Amino acid sequence: MFELRDRDGLGRLGRFATAHGTIDTPALLPVINPNQVLIPAKEMRSKFGTQIVITNAYILNRSMREDARAKGVHGVLDFDGPVMTDSGAFQQHVYGGVAVSNEDIVTFQREIRSDIGTSLDLFSEPEHGPDRAQGDLKETLERTRAAARLRGDMLLAGTVQGSLFPDLRRQCGEELSKIDVAVHAIGGVVPLMETYRFRDLVRVIVAAKQGLRPDRPVHLFGAGHPMIFGLTALLGCDLFDSASYAKYARDGRLLFADGTRHVEELREIPCECPACSTANLEDLRTGERLRAEHNLHVSFAELRRVRQAIAEGQLWELVERRCRAHPALLEALRELRHHNDFLERFEPLSRRGGFYFTGPETQHRPILHRYRQRLNERYRPPKRHLVMFSEGARPYATTHKEAMLRILAQRDVHFLVKSVWGPVPIELDEMHPIGQSVVPDTFDAESLEAAEVFAQQFLRGAGYEKGVLWRGEESLADLPESGPGTFDVILARLRAVADFQFGRGAADALLAGAIETVRSRKTGKVRNVTRDGVHILSVRAEDGMYTLKAEGGRILQAAFPAPRLRVVVQSDTVEFNRQGKNVMAKFVVDADPDLRPFDEVLVVDGSDALVAVGRTLMNRAEMIAFDRGVAVQVREGVAASP
Amino acid sequence: MFELRDRDGLGRLGRFATAHGTIDTPALLPVINPNQVLIPAKEMRSKFGTQIVITNAYILNRSMREDARAKGVHGVLDFDGPVMTDSGAFQQHVYGGVAVSNEDIVTFQREIRSDIGTSLDLFSEPEHGPDRAQGDLKETLERTRAAARLRGDMLLAGTVQGSLFPDLRRQCGEELSKIDVAVHAIGGVVPLMETYRFRDLVRVIVAAKQGLRPDRPVHLFGAGHPMIFGLTALLGCDLFDSASYAKYARDGRLLFADGTRHVEELREIPCECPACSTANLEDLRTGERLRAEHNLHVSFAELRRVRQAIAEGQLWELVERRCRAHPALLEALRELRHHNDFLERFEPLSRRGGFYFTGPETQHRPILHRYRQRLNERYRPPKRHLVMFSEGARPYATTHKEAMLRILAQRDVHFLVKSVWGPVPIELDEMHPIGQSVVPDTFDAESLEAAEVFAQQFLRGAGYEKGVLWRGEESLADLPESGPGTFDVILARLRAVADFQFGRGAADALLAGAIETVRSRKTGKVRNVTRDGVHILSVRAEDGMYTLKAEGGRILQAAFPAPRLRVVVQSDTVEFNRQGKNVMAKFVVDADPDLRPFDEVLVVDGSDALVAVGRTLMNRAEMIAFDRGVAVQVREGVAASP
Repeated sequence: MFELRDRDGLGRLGRFATAHGTIDTPALLPVINPNQVLIPAKEMRSKFGTQIVITNAYILNRSMREDARAKGVHGVLDFDGPVMTDSGAFQQHVYGGVAVSNEDIVTFQREIRSDIGTSLDLFSEPEHGPDRAQGDLKETLERTRAAARLRGDMLLAGTVQGSLFPDLRRQCGEELSKIDVAVHAIGGVVPLMETYRFRDLVRVIVAAKQGLRPDRPVHLFGAGHPMIFGLTALLGCDLFDSASYAKYARDGRLLFADGTRHVEELREIPCECPACSTANLEDLRTGERLRAEHNLHVSFAELRRVRQAIAEGQLWELVERRCRAHPALLEALRELRHHNDFLERFEPLSRRGGFYFTGPETQHRPILHRYRQRLNERYRPPKRHLVMFSEGARPYATTHKEAMLRILAQRDVHFLVKSVWGPVPIELDEMHPIGQSVVPDTFDAESLEAAEVFAQQFLRGAGYEKGVLWRGEESLADLPESGPGTFDVILARLRAVADFQFGRGAADALLAGAIETVRSRKTGKVRNVTRDGVHILSVRAEDGMYTLKAEGGRILQAAFPAPRLRVVVQSDTVEFNRQGKNVMAKFVVDADPDLRPFDEVLVVDGSDALVAVGRTLMNRAEMIAFDRGVAVQVREGVAASP
Repeated sequence: MFELRDRDGLGRLGRFATAHGTIDTPALLPVINPNQVLIPAKEMRSKFGTQIVITNAYILNRSMREDARAKGVHGVLDFDGPVMTDSGAFQQHVYGGVAVSNEDIVTFQREIRSDIGTSLDLFSEPEHGPDRAQGDLKETLERTRAAARLRGDMLLAGTVQGSLFPDLRRQCGEELSKIDVAVHAIGGVVPLMETYRFRDLVRVIVAAKQGLRPDRPVHLFGAGHPMIFGLTALLGCDLFDSASYAKYARDGRLLFADGTRHVEELREIPCECPACSTANLEDLRTGERLRAEHNLHVSFAELRRVRQAIAEGQLWELVERRCRAHPALLEALRELRHHNDFLERFEPLSRRGGFYFTGPETQHRPILHRYRQRLNERYRPPKRHLVMFSEGARPYATTHKEAMLRILAQRDVHFLVKSVWGPVPIELDEMHPIGQSVVPDTFDAESLEAAEVFAQQFLRGAGYEKGVLWRGEESLADLPESGPGTFDVILARLRAVADFQFGRGAADALLAGAIETVRSRKTGKVRNVTRDGVHILSVRAEDGMYTLKAEGGRILQAAFPAPRLRVVVQSDTVEFNRQGKNVMAKFVVDADPDLRPFDEVLVVDGSDALVAVGRTLMNRAEMIAFDRGVAVQVREGVAASP
């Protein structure tokens, strides 16, 4: 039912099928209060482009039970698109004991033909202790199981609770993953959002995501402020619901992607939305409906910005900008680094477009966490004597590069730039994200300090015999002279990237024999690599990394034992993949757990026969979990050995 | 002609009168190419709300000279609002020698009844050396003088050149200030904007502003990208002109406040403007006019955001957010601290609303530069023994405050919080911006380092006899015991703020005698201060600073010799001010050079008789220069002594 179509880390563009149509995620579900319709569902679709709305089954059950049963929720709302219903758990929590049971409200939702119903979870407050949170969680899981038995054809949302306890949130996610629900909601977060506890919100979402299976959309319950769409989408939230547009409008407040403003504060209209473009300040002050329209325009536009950012691999940049809108968001941004081991598993091999330094937070992005890890684990210095260079911590040493290359060709030394991203051996300067990064001329002290720490960590294990800091050629006097070497920077670059991308040993395997390169006439950069006359690899201009040809795949297969670099497919799909058709996730049997999205892979059958080479869209956990969508885009099928 | 109506530092809301109507600044002047009208001027007004347009006199002169002379530029453009014309200096610079002289083009502009004409300046490129730049500058000044003689009734814009040389830019500004022009343009900056040299742009603008008189609007020539409206408005630019909306639209590019996007990159429409709200991606790809409309909607909305930010004192926050959109903008943001001595002169006493930490750049904002300066120069520790406290560099020590206050009342010690903004003596914790600041829970290393440096700088001159770091009450064991003191934190706060706001000695003068306070029932904070039964001061809840009553003014007048805290007015306005009418800038004779915008002041006549107390809108240089607008908002007039 849920299909992953594109992604940027945990942020994803998905498609979710319901009985009343398909929705594209991330999606915002405007809340329609059936007793007080400010903007009808149909108009939500025509004017703001929403595909799905949400309404409260608890209100319907209380105020128009029979009518709703007769007409169905679509009839009540006069809307033929997907409708989700909420059980009223939050209302019951806030306003107290209303006698509606889990069984009753789930049955009622089924009766009114809700597309996605919700079980009646128990809302845990952030200040609840572990015992109470655990008790509530147990009851929530029981109710979810009961709801799953009652759901009939209706899809169900099962809600993750667990207060602020990461272990409880993760456990709850794990247990919910075993239950027959279609959507996972993260509940109990409204108090965090209302009090700007965004760091805690990050911790709660990450813990829940760690427990949840990856093939179901995740709904962040009660999240309707565009200020946090980017941040929470980055953590893998797919659905948001918004009563905020109406609630804020009622209080005279306007939503913006960088915060909230009360109309009474305004002396200008700081907005270009259609509602604001035709209004004056007086209209905004007096028009609740106009304010609600503004709130919706801005919210849906921010959601489109998030989707666009995912599509172009710029979601981090968007979030880094947004998190400057309030110190509590900055705190949340700084929290992210503590979850890098988890985030890195979903981090693509590379992204499109430039990679921007926006502050000392950037150097902790998962892609750089991985860069420094692989540098330590996969990279091997090609020479024994190091010359370390620093040009104000910028990642590539433009000024002196010519001189370095000349020296490299003559002496037994190696160059490394001490950069803000981590140390960069001269051969890795064109690889993503190093080569695509854009940095200021000067850095803050934290970034410079980290550059130093990163360099020291690397040098400890790198195995250089001796090193000096570059201060012009005279600084090399301390390093032993040696006759003219045969260092070829082109080959060194090919070798370093091969090990970096596929694992240590890939360079030795791939780049043995008679290696020739085809280079771009315009940039001089390598485009294709042939071995003994056979095209084995291409180098992408955009990220300096390899795409794999079938022959390159064969070499890697021989060099690395299973499951390394493999995606194993069921036998009944093998023939299709050999013909170049993509590998669908549901046919994946197993895969290398070290694979990451957009990695180049070997598609093999159950006996490890090479079937195709291609590019993943998913990591292993996702390939195993998903029943829909493409796991590997096949670049080249491989015929069966005769 | 130019009137200052509100301000946030150098950023200002102004009003500028022309023969065809008044414009509100900051203003954006869309460029209308008379040979190729994409969007007519009238539509610019009705659809985008522009008050003024700009067109190129050089093009009119070349392609429709007689027609333009006959119809006038308003007739040609079919627009009855203000029209500015450009001389074509940039075109002549880029496309080369077109034989039109300064005299001809100025005369022509007068003939076509341009509201604001431009002399033919010589465009200096950033890479021009000092000799060439100086030569060009000299010629530019000559031509401006000639233009001023020829201008007739037409207003003139005189352009600052000087390449990247701050001294030349400043000199040019000073010389232009003596010439009879109405607008100052800053020229030669398009190459900086095109190549994202925003740090150099900051240097150029600051140098020009240092030379220019403050009572004329400043036009940043060729600035049409909304990405830099905030930054350059913060530096005192009032007018922007945009051909970008059309040029970018022609190339398929869309402007946004955080950068540029090519339509071909888009998979979603990341915008809520009216053009985008009714369009689909295909419309945007094919519709040049639609793209131009988008560019205008976004540009004018950003300008409104800038104006709103000035009105509410949040321009820095806006700029700090915007400068995360590109590393070159971040570099520009980090450049600003180097100009703090200049920026501080225009910095208001306080601002409305919260004060946000957005990164290590925030602690160098001019208001904090001033805070630390005044702490060193004006603040006097009330006790000899210091207890220094740090709660993760947060500016106020919430957790331990009760304990501190109790100890303060019993022992001869004083408390100071080592904060990210600088050291905060416990009495200054409610004062702007300390008390209004919002910070994250944790800080980057640069901010923490700076907190340490700020504290050490202060302690060196503060005159404490002995100090310890707070580690609970036991840490005080090293400090000499002393009998119960009489430290009254309320009084200490009144004293500290008085010295801080008015100068060292103000507390001794104001708070002698029988001091009583009226406190807020709700917050317990002091609202009014009486001395011997007379109300002398009020404390504003919003910033913890004083407003001055007449009697308070009398005390300060006696305590501080002229010109301290004074604004001296002409004798013919004295009676009006005594009756409570505001002081208009044109009647100001002199003022204390240490006055800052929004300072509380003594209005006096030529013999230093107190006429009124009030609040400045301007600093001294501005009061002297401006011929229009309010210099001091009078709060209370003072009757003549009998």
